[in-house]
Amino acid sequence: MTRLIAAALAATFCTSAAAQSAGPGSVDLTQATKLREAALADTLAWQITEDLTTEVGPRLAGTEAEARARQWAVRRLTALGFANVRVDEFTIPTWVRGEERAAVLAPFPQPMTIAALGNSGSTPPGGIEAEVVGFPSIEALQAAPPEVVQGKIVYLTHAMPRTQDGSGYGVFGAPRRQGPTIASQKGAVGLVIRPIGTDWHRNPHTGVMRFTDGAQPIPAGALSNPDADQLERILKRAKEPVRMRLVLESRNLGPQPSGNVLADVPGRDPKAPPVVVACHLDSWDQGTGAIDDAAGCGIVAAAAKRIMDSGRPLRTIRVVWFGSEEVGLFGGLDYQKRYSKQPHHALVESDFGADRVWKVDSKLGAERKSEAQALQTILQPLGIVPGTLDQAEGSDIGPILADGHPGVSLLQDGTRYFDLHHTPDDTLDKIDKAQLQQNVAAWTAMLAVLSGGTEPVR
Amino acid sequence: MTRLIAAALAATFCTSAAAQSAGPGSVDLTQATKLREAALADTLAWQITEDLTTEVGPRLAGTEAEARARQWAVRRLTALGFANVRVDEFTIPTWVRGEERAAVLAPFPQPMTIAALGNSGSTPPGGIEAEVVGFPSIEALQAAPPEVVQGKIVYLTHAMPRTQDGSGYGVFGAPRRQGPTIASQKGAVGLVIRPIGTDWHRNPHTGVMRFTDGAQPIPAGALSNPDADQLERILKRAKEPVRMRLVLESRNLGPQPSGNVLADVPGRDPKAPPVVVACHLDSWDQGTGAIDDAAGCGIVAAAAKRIMDSGRPLRTIRVVWFGSEEVGLFGGLDYQKRYSKQPHHALVESDFGADRVWKVDSKLGAERKSEAQALQTILQPLGIVPGTLDQAEGSDIGPILADGHPGVSLLQDGTRYFDLHHTPDDTLDKIDKAQLQQNVAAWTAMLAVLSGGTEPVR
Repeated sequence: MTRLIAAALAATFCTSAAAQSAGPGSVDLTQATKLREAALADTLAWQITEDLTTEVGPRLAGTEAEARARQWAVRRLTALGFANVRVDEFTIPTWVRGEERAAVLAPFPQPMTIAALGNSGSTPPGGIEAEVVGFPSIEALQAAPPEVVQGKIVYLTHAMPRTQDGSGYGVFGAPRRQGPTIASQKGAVGLVIRPIGTDWHRNPHTGVMRFTDGAQPIPAGALSNPDADQLERILKRAKEPVRMRLVLESRNLGPQPSGNVLADVPGRDPKAPPVVVACHLDSWDQGTGAIDDAAGCGIVAAAAKRIMDSGRPLRTIRVVWFGSEEVGLFGGLDYQKRYSKQPHHALVESDFGADRVWKVDSKLGAERKSEAQALQTILQPLGIVPGTLDQAEGSDIGPILADGHPGVSLLQDGTRYFDLHHTPDDTLDKIDKAQLQQNVAAWTAMLAVLSGGTEPVR
Repeated sequence: MTRLIAAALAATFCTSAAAQSAGPGSVDLTQATKLREAALADTLAWQITEDLTTEVGPRLAGTEAEARARQWAVRRLTALGFANVRVDEFTIPTWVRGEERAAVLAPFPQPMTIAALGNSGSTPPGGIEAEVVGFPSIEALQAAPPEVVQGKIVYLTHAMPRTQDGSGYGVFGAPRRQGPTIASQKGAVGLVIRPIGTDWHRNPHTGVMRFTDGAQPIPAGALSNPDADQLERILKRAKEPVRMRLVLESRNLGPQPSGNVLADVPGRDPKAPPVVVACHLDSWDQGTGAIDDAAGCGIVAAAAKRIMDSGRPLRTIRVVWFGSEEVGLFGGLDYQKRYSKQPHHALVESDFGADRVWKVDSKLGAERKSEAQALQTILQPLGIVPGTLDQAEGSDIGPILADGHPGVSLLQDGTRYFDLHHTPDDTLDKIDKAQLQQNVAAWTAMLAVLSGGTEPVR
């Protein structure tokens, strides 16, 4: 918080320096600087986040709750004054959670906290009971002879660290993404993992997985970290086989409606490629999806609205609130299919919580180096480190970025993101208002540059 | 932690000063000082806490889990070398939790996290549905005309603050203790409260209540704090009645066996009244009862064992691991009934988590002022503030202290106690090993004084 206040002060003192830097060949940042500073007092991003998480709450992709979220989004974006508010519809295979509980039966009987992973197989009514066999890593499970695993419940751990950039999620997420398939192929009747999360509360972290290579679906769930500790202690000290009961009921509802909600700030030049600012509207089902990703929707809409209210930008800003991100990036794939043949000036997504932006990366192309540098310059007073000029990423915009479209990444501090990610604890109270405002300031300043600047509406 | 290290260093430098303070009329603290410093490296309290929470886990009073805990306790205390390990048996009325869930049905449908309060009435199968009426305080509920409450689900909030001494628990716990009776008497069909807790996780805090004054039992549960926030936001912005579904199933099992586990360090003078050091063995059912109160049992047994290993004390030390504390102090009442007519040198209980001891109170009587002052002197190097000489308290020892027996209180830092208290999050990982050791050092030093000092076993 101290750093944030310092950043805000720096923003004030640097105003004239930033404006002066607009020499020949560079971008005039006077307007962007003013917009950035005003945005530090933003209240709209918070209001959108509060309203969506309160009035809709959890909004699992493909369910009626996500449909209510789309209706809510259309109403809200229209009321805010955006143009062309519309829904790009598509359908997705829909999985829903049922009853879920777990217990160690022997040698130390006790209940455990568990949540099914998305697309988990369902246990029969009453659940399954089996011996537990533990593995310290996915490599150890892969190396195990099938007879060690057959007919058993596999427990799989890992050692995911807390990082600022979230980089542990890729490699340490393997137990969730690949564990179920490997366990199934070796004949396991179920899989239980240490959650892909960094907190120490009784929160299982859910998340999507998919059975591949013809593997039969088996029940697969995540414990909480305290439960994983406990199961490891029990496995270590038990002098007889450890037996567990798993009740992980779930259902596949077949294809269900989903969609992306789009809205525009029309540009002065209708032929100029748009700037896309994105988030996702769907959430996992146990929390209210405040940091994942109502806050992202609040940030991008609030920033776009600030540009809209300051005049008419050169380029159209297209706000996209994606659907069905959590369950397989279906919204991003639909967007890619519809729009990848059209040019984009840049695509940017906010989907890593609500803590401060700490770095900016971009991939705008060699010929747009001065624009990329202008982004670095305008963001620096907010305490944002200039990153690489040849990389941009995002969840829903990932597919279209992979097609070679230009993009920017405003990287958020993820130090506590995986404490809350995909848990019941992803709720409004976890959001820090001042850090949310820093996000809006960064996004507004970025949009002021990328949109080509606004002129008064005649 | 910094303060703790400082305290440990201070302990070392103060050794000779403490020893020198043993002038005429005062207690010789040389032995107590040595025992205190050695205890800062204790591992037994941790081991007992880990073993009990792992090998037994949750141990609700009156259930077979509490019976397993008693068997475990007898085995463990015997193995540690204590004498006269025994169980004082009694029976208690036993209530157990069943299925529990809640949901707002209108105007913003969404699930909520809930836990039944101990002795809650049960909903019928399928639960109940009713309009919610909210009250900002128990006084406001008390003042409400019955027609405002009749047939409705009452929501009751409060503003419990975080305190070091836990003093908010008394007054801010009224919604849990008295709310159900008042709501029932006014015709409510159910009660939902903001939890009696200071954390911001999706943890409902359970705890015991009792319907009094002839009030009919109604279903009564606690939300988590994020859910309470959410329900208050919904009540505030709803333009139509807020409706809720409550499923809070529970059962009364009738009288079931419980008991207190006792064990002695025999004193050199068999006629001298004993020093009782206590904790409680039962826990709530959702966590593993690490801070409430496995740690307390670890602390008192580890301290008593250190005295036993140093020789034979003048007075018998009686370790009491009480049963059925959480559900109504039944173990403490049984102890009072059996032993209140016998004199005690002092009774002391550890039942406020595992964080450091910060203050010592005592009530030993005017004629034992030098003993009380010796306690203050021996504890000060651990960073323990000298408190009053005319008050002592404890949960299970409360009834017998009220009969006028002498007692000491080693007050633990409760700043984070009500984050975890009576929640699924009361698990081993929440315990700080260094602070647990400071507790053992304090208890060992106290016992060295109260027991009259040890002499080599002949």
